[in-house]
Amino acid sequence: MPTPLDFYFDFSSPYGYLASTRIDALAAKYGREVIWRPILLGVIFKQTGAAPLTQVPLKGEYSRRDFARTARLFGVPFAMPAKFPIPAQAPSRAVLWARTQDPARSRALATALYRAYFVDGVEISVPENTAAVAAKLGHDPVAVRAALDDPAVKQALVTENEAAMRRGVFGSPFVFVDDEPFWGSDRLDQIEKWLATGGF
Amino acid sequence: MPTPLDFYFDFSSPYGYLASTRIDALAAKYGREVIWRPILLGVIFKQTGAAPLTQVPLKGEYSRRDFARTARLFGVPFAMPAKFPIPAQAPSRAVLWARTQDPARSRALATALYRAYFVDGVEISVPENTAAVAAKLGHDPVAVRAALDDPAVKQALVTENEAAMRRGVFGSPFVFVDDEPFWGSDRLDQIEKWLATGGF
Repeated sequence: MPTPLDFYFDFSSPYGYLASTRIDALAAKYGREVIWRPILLGVIFKQTGAAPLTQVPLKGEYSRRDFARTARLFGVPFAMPAKFPIPAQAPSRAVLWARTQDPARSRALATALYRAYFVDGVEISVPENTAAVAAKLGHDPVAVRAALDDPAVKQALVTENEAAMRRGVFGSPFVFVDDEPFWGSDRLDQIEKWLATGGF
Repeated sequence: MPTPLDFYFDFSSPYGYLASTRIDALAAKYGREVIWRPILLGVIFKQTGAAPLTQVPLKGEYSRRDFARTARLFGVPFAMPAKFPIPAQAPSRAVLWARTQDPARSRALATALYRAYFVDGVEISVPENTAAVAAKLGHDPVAVRAALDDPAVKQALVTENEAAMRRGVFGSPFVFVDDEPFWGSDRLDQIEKWLATGGF
């Protein structure tokens, strides 16, 4: 069984959302699974000194245009949320909680949460909203809501984030193919070439 | 005559070098010219608060790997210079000086200067080295060396840089197709699609 790809993403990252719409199909084409790993870029940015893209002068305006343009190129729906960026603890914890139960359902939940935020404008940072998205997929909303405050689930996210940083993750999306790191939704073509050739 | 593309680049930018190896052929395919516009990112970064890529924690190490990997993907030679980043006044002024005389020769000079730095490791921030590169293309090295200290040439670079910032340029490479901005060597595919379709 070949090593799964590690797909690190922040729920508040437009480029993470864009990559999330393609990563599974891309990996499957080369017989690979994907482990979806939610992270909190805000915590990582405190270490690296980076700022959210949209808050950087000049770059901020450009990036908003580029999010929408790249979404059109990808052929996926996208609407810049009114509140942006958001702290992503609630959706990230929900996904990690679901992963311990069933990886496939966890991935479906992550996809639904990303769509809720970047297509429907649902403020998924609000625990009740994350639970409501999960409920639509058949999860028990009371169990999800409780998981968001569960110390073990909280710790799982802290641990995931620390492991990501130790591995060199500084942005979203961030993908490892075996040990090769790729940052950005604009590296999907390089990821594909790497998968096809085993490295170049 | 369709509007030329504006190609903004910093001589100390690896991604600028990579894009420079393709931008003319890409534009020509759609009947467009390219105006090569050297800028000083260091001056722009003072306004935007950005730092050179390689000096950002985590991102720095990743970017060095990505420069080389992307160069292999592009099929162009690349060697990370020992001294990096460098102030790019000398090569930028040389290119602007040559542009007032002959745009085609100016472009050839820019290409040669980029190669000197990112392939042969020549420290083109040293005025004498920039003049030597120009001399190999048939320019009078004494005239080039004098141009680098010419107040009018210096002012031309300041003016170019200020105009770039007013236009929203915050990185390198940065390309305008008509008024549509594209940042990064990883936007060449979007530039091509924009040229082919007139916008998407």
